[in-house]
Amino acid sequence: MTVDVPSGMPAKVETPAPGDPRLARLSLNQRTTAGWSLREAIDGTRAAGLDSIGLWREPVAEVGVASARAWIDSAGLRVSSLCRGGFFTASDPAERAAALASNRAAIDETAALRAGVLVLVPGGLPPGDRDLAGARCRVVDAVASLVPYAVERGVRLGIEPMNPIYAADRGVVSTLAQALDIAEQFPAGAVGVVVDTFHLWWEPGVGAQLARAGDRILSYQICDWITPLPADTLLARGMMGDGHIDFATFTRAVSAAGYQGDVEVEIFNADVWAAPPDQVVATMARRYVELVEPYL
Amino acid sequence: MTVDVPSGMPAKVETPAPGDPRLARLSLNQRTTAGWSLREAIDGTRAAGLDSIGLWREPVAEVGVASARAWIDSAGLRVSSLCRGGFFTASDPAERAAALASNRAAIDETAALRAGVLVLVPGGLPPGDRDLAGARCRVVDAVASLVPYAVERGVRLGIEPMNPIYAADRGVVSTLAQALDIAEQFPAGAVGVVVDTFHLWWEPGVGAQLARAGDRILSYQICDWITPLPADTLLARGMMGDGHIDFATFTRAVSAAGYQGDVEVEIFNADVWAAPPDQVVATMARRYVELVEPYL
Repeated sequence: MTVDVPSGMPAKVETPAPGDPRLARLSLNQRTTAGWSLREAIDGTRAAGLDSIGLWREPVAEVGVASARAWIDSAGLRVSSLCRGGFFTASDPAERAAALASNRAAIDETAALRAGVLVLVPGGLPPGDRDLAGARCRVVDAVASLVPYAVERGVRLGIEPMNPIYAADRGVVSTLAQALDIAEQFPAGAVGVVVDTFHLWWEPGVGAQLARAGDRILSYQICDWITPLPADTLLARGMMGDGHIDFATFTRAVSAAGYQGDVEVEIFNADVWAAPPDQVVATMARRYVELVEPYL
Repeated sequence: MTVDVPSGMPAKVETPAPGDPRLARLSLNQRTTAGWSLREAIDGTRAAGLDSIGLWREPVAEVGVASARAWIDSAGLRVSSLCRGGFFTASDPAERAAALASNRAAIDETAALRAGVLVLVPGGLPPGDRDLAGARCRVVDAVASLVPYAVERGVRLGIEPMNPIYAADRGVVSTLAQALDIAEQFPAGAVGVVVDTFHLWWEPGVGAQLARAGDRILSYQICDWITPLPADTLLARGMMGDGHIDFATFTRAVSAAGYQGDVEVEIFNADVWAAPPDQVVATMARRYVELVEPYL
């Protein structure tokens, strides 16, 4: 009997085999299999029959962008996204300059990896600072200052609205509506949004906002909202189907908005990380073909 | 030296003495001092020089509404709110009928206690149900069915939008904008909103929504958003000043909307509950006169 991890429940569908057309748009965000090195993640993605992977800057930096690109090319994979830029809400001028420099480097890496989008996680309130409106204004300013650099390199910037659980410490942009209010100040070819079910499933009117987003949806990331919420809220994301999110309805709305890109599974969860990565990938593929792919 | 609890930091202002006019609108929600019985909470509120208390149904039921009312009258207190009605998102007909019956009883109790408002916590998704839009529709239906009963008894119903952290399991109404969309379907004298800083501090455009709310603001509850979020998210609320919320800006907006009622401190937090309740009340009074009262 095949079981799903980390739930241990019997699998409801068979694991799709490599070459199954239903896997064509599924991407493994490498943080879902945090125990794997970049090399292992590339091999594991390929072995599972996926064509796409979402990368993180730190493991790419460990081997160097050129090696990473060579490995990706050799494996014949797409890079659905690079995580992550952003964290540019500092009010201190030196910290702000450093953040922008880091983002320019991230843009260079995104271009070198030919990733579909650079994911921007805005960042939280500076320590001791309670001016949320001010931090949100600095997000707009930072995006504005990065757009010319990104456009020159053919890189699209994806603002990721974050669940309000992270508003203080990780992401001051809290809704898709708010992310679009920012993105729409720039050309659609330059700035869009990253749509993550964990962050947005609860947003009133999110269906209308997805329609509004249209071709500004640069990435569709999926994982579930589980309760009780794990003690470490940074690791609170669940495998699709283990929580409360209606993936059929959400995915239909993303699809109706015209999104044709990859669907990236990004799960931060201690139980997922403790499970054998190849089993995690198999579970994620099963859950995807059961709960998500039919609605694309 | 006077110290604040539970932080142990030196107090920045002196504890306001009974009779201090700055305390005129401060109310102790009795769950902030969960270790106190109703009798102790009434006495503690009075001893601290406060004129108002927010009650919960369960401790009131333990002594009976008539006794509770007599004690409150004898102490010369106002009842700023009764917590709580709501939890009426069940789809099962029998569960739904039971929830509505419980809410009618809560309306009776609110009237008997002459409380300013019955706080409605909408409730989450039924077990195994992922239809968030459906649950939100049932909130509207439940409020509609309760309004005539409440109006007959002179009770105002306050819909409490909840931080999205609770969208799955406690409150499917997630923003002030959404709560107002519901409340405005009914007369302002019958249905309003409960504004809690913990739930709403992050909401984009909340200032405009507070202005829109106007005299529909039936209660202003305060506590802070602290990080790292405590492991039990139900006990994640902090003492004002211990977290990230800008109480000056938020309070100014509540005041500008015309709110002239009590300001209720409602803190669910294991460290607060472990501290001596009289010291918690003293800290809360100091933090209130420092961070909130000047902006009313």
